[in-house]
Amino acid sequence: MKQMMHTPEGVRDIYNSECARKLTLENRIRKVMNSYGYEDIQTPTFEFFEIFKKERGSVASNEMFKLFDSEGNTLVLRPDMTPSIVRCVSKYYEPADLPVRLCYNGSTFINDRSYRLRLKESTDAGAELFGDDSVAADAEMIACVVDCLRACGLSDFQIDIGSASFLSGLFEEIGFTEETEAQIRRFMLSKNFFALESLLLKENLTSRQREVFNRLQIYSGTIQQVLGMEALVKNEKSREAIRRLKALYKMLGCYGMEKYVSFDLAMVTGYQYYTGIIFNAYTYGTGNAIVSGGRYDTLMSQFSYDAPAVGFKISVDGVMTALDRQKISVDVSMTETLLLMEPEQAEKCIAMACRLRSRGIRLAVLQKPEDRKLEDYLEYAKKSGIAQIYYINRSGTNVTVLNVKNGTKNTEELAELMGDK
Amino acid sequence: MKQMMHTPEGVRDIYNSECARKLTLENRIRKVMNSYGYEDIQTPTFEFFEIFKKERGSVASNEMFKLFDSEGNTLVLRPDMTPSIVRCVSKYYEPADLPVRLCYNGSTFINDRSYRLRLKESTDAGAELFGDDSVAADAEMIACVVDCLRACGLSDFQIDIGSASFLSGLFEEIGFTEETEAQIRRFMLSKNFFALESLLLKENLTSRQREVFNRLQIYSGTIQQVLGMEALVKNEKSREAIRRLKALYKMLGCYGMEKYVSFDLAMVTGYQYYTGIIFNAYTYGTGNAIVSGGRYDTLMSQFSYDAPAVGFKISVDGVMTALDRQKISVDVSMTETLLLMEPEQAEKCIAMACRLRSRGIRLAVLQKPEDRKLEDYLEYAKKSGIAQIYYINRSGTNVTVLNVKNGTKNTEELAELMGDK
Repeated sequence: MKQMMHTPEGVRDIYNSECARKLTLENRIRKVMNSYGYEDIQTPTFEFFEIFKKERGSVASNEMFKLFDSEGNTLVLRPDMTPSIVRCVSKYYEPADLPVRLCYNGSTFINDRSYRLRLKESTDAGAELFGDDSVAADAEMIACVVDCLRACGLSDFQIDIGSASFLSGLFEEIGFTEETEAQIRRFMLSKNFFALESLLLKENLTSRQREVFNRLQIYSGTIQQVLGMEALVKNEKSREAIRRLKALYKMLGCYGMEKYVSFDLAMVTGYQYYTGIIFNAYTYGTGNAIVSGGRYDTLMSQFSYDAPAVGFKISVDGVMTALDRQKISVDVSMTETLLLMEPEQAEKCIAMACRLRSRGIRLAVLQKPEDRKLEDYLEYAKKSGIAQIYYINRSGTNVTVLNVKNGTKNTEELAELMGDK
Repeated sequence: MKQMMHTPEGVRDIYNSECARKLTLENRIRKVMNSYGYEDIQTPTFEFFEIFKKERGSVASNEMFKLFDSEGNTLVLRPDMTPSIVRCVSKYYEPADLPVRLCYNGSTFINDRSYRLRLKESTDAGAELFGDDSVAADAEMIACVVDCLRACGLSDFQIDIGSASFLSGLFEEIGFTEETEAQIRRFMLSKNFFALESLLLKENLTSRQREVFNRLQIYSGTIQQVLGMEALVKNEKSREAIRRLKALYKMLGCYGMEKYVSFDLAMVTGYQYYTGIIFNAYTYGTGNAIVSGGRYDTLMSQFSYDAPAVGFKISVDGVMTALDRQKISVDVSMTETLLLMEPEQAEKCIAMACRLRSRGIRLAVLQKPEDRKLEDYLEYAKKSGIAQIYYINRSGTNVTVLNVKNGTKNTEELAELMGDK
């Protein structure tokens, strides 16, 4: 019976003003994405396991919630929306229909055993752009993130931009073993540069290559530092990645958004499908990235045809935590009016309720036994966030208005309250 | 690899204008529920199996999608929102906090093996009122349903109202065995009155009781027919149920909503937790009920304390199907403007895009190679629903506007389009 009151570990209920805030933020984010030309999409909560298999580079198999359909196929609660959207584009759009822009808002599920406090069901709002490999597309994603976060009320945030192709170019140039490369990525992901250094000491690198790794640890931040790397790396892939970041920075200038971005060439992400820019947004009040995204130009070809793609997801839960900690309020309307009704006044009460509701007032009706006084409802009203209690007097022409905050009562004409006068 | 393009059976993708319509309808429904004083709530997609066990009277165990958490507990994808909301009220509200009104919008999951075309993941929007056992509360639910359906654009629908307590009173009076009662309910649920009659012939009923069952088959429809039953039933529970329906009908008159309701005392539902009124809403274009609901005064006590409750859920998918079949359109805005950008005009293009977006225009930017003409984008624009293509001319002061529908071009001043003039 203990379970009757609880949610499983890692998931939670959200209700009342907190839920209203969440829905408000989701609507604001959606509006921004729509304004950039992104159309809405919803995919099923569960998909065939195939969609998220290791080769897709999404989430580790043992971190997915699995279930079975009646034919015995393995299904998973989607751990990441991107592969689902890729599946949709493969299915519903021909190459000639591209570019296509899609945006979503929905739950993703990660069965993270390593960190008990992390949410296992979280809400992501994201956008994906398929069929556009331009720097303009990369810049648009960053700009859209900035506009979404500003629409949520955040102003003090930073988007760290890295490049998956810069690092893979460097790794290819050096020719690490697969195992060593995986270890290096793990150290870089956890920013464990001490372990990275020990590991690299054992590797056969040129002094120039060692210098690149040394700078990676410290050279993150401004675009100038990124550009300083250009002279040091010799492989074309990494050099092209740097030129692209430079062009991206310039285009972000057109949006007036340079101030929100910084660069980090040592950035590594948990998702293996990224091939170009990668980025994370951070703000005060939450250690985790509130946005993550990047370019994934090879994922589509695993599903159907070849097409470049770039996208991001905003952690709605993360944004809410940040707003909360930064004491930034999100205006939501809650029910503030309670109308106490005695059955013999039902007709007038209901007419009044309908009228006030049609005028945008959120009003709850409560049947009042004859022997209860208005004041008997004060405690309840206070706890429920009700600001005023209405009661149509026996006469049927006047309304007693009880101010919940200070307990004062006054009388108003029904016709006036209804807007008939 | 076949699975890479498909969704599991019984679930589907929804995108573009169809998805925009769905979100618009959900927002309209939410707005109505909020106006009635209902506050938003979201519960986890999966819950402990305990919450939905047989005793709760929700969905059959073999119709639930089950999975396991790392401790080996059985979890289920929620097949029904009501028990989840009951859990929340038990957990977060004291008896003194009631009445409490909550509304939700979310997916429910039923692994229905009997009917292959039925959706296994569907979207329900619902409202639940706890702590109010009045007829006014019953009437409020029906009124809220009517307002929600009207807000969705439906006008031609009917809400069938029955009473779980009328039937249970009758069954208790007669004293059927548990097995017989279950069979009778099944026949009534499938409206198989022929089988019901055969079964009843074998039972020991008074002629009056036989007459009640005979009338149940034909006496559905108006309130007068319901009232005609009052003289025939002798048990107090069924008589009280009839008096309550009468009072409900009267109160719906105050809302001016009598025309939407009809009565059916033979109504039975798949949910066992209902104790008072039960109702289903139907409209043209879909055979299934688009709304179902009822009073469940004993479910709360299974979780914590005793509290009456009444609620309903709207099938958002059902409403969409009905609107579609009835050719009732739902206005949604889609991206209608495409701005073709050449890199050297990036600054002006982005400034223009930002300005138009801030004025509520949904605008997609697309980088155009120098050698491609505007007309090359006509086919793409048509398929994407784009109405007009903008292109800032080399001069930087004029914009070529290509009308996608008729292929005509004209030139407008950039300053004028931006609203600077």
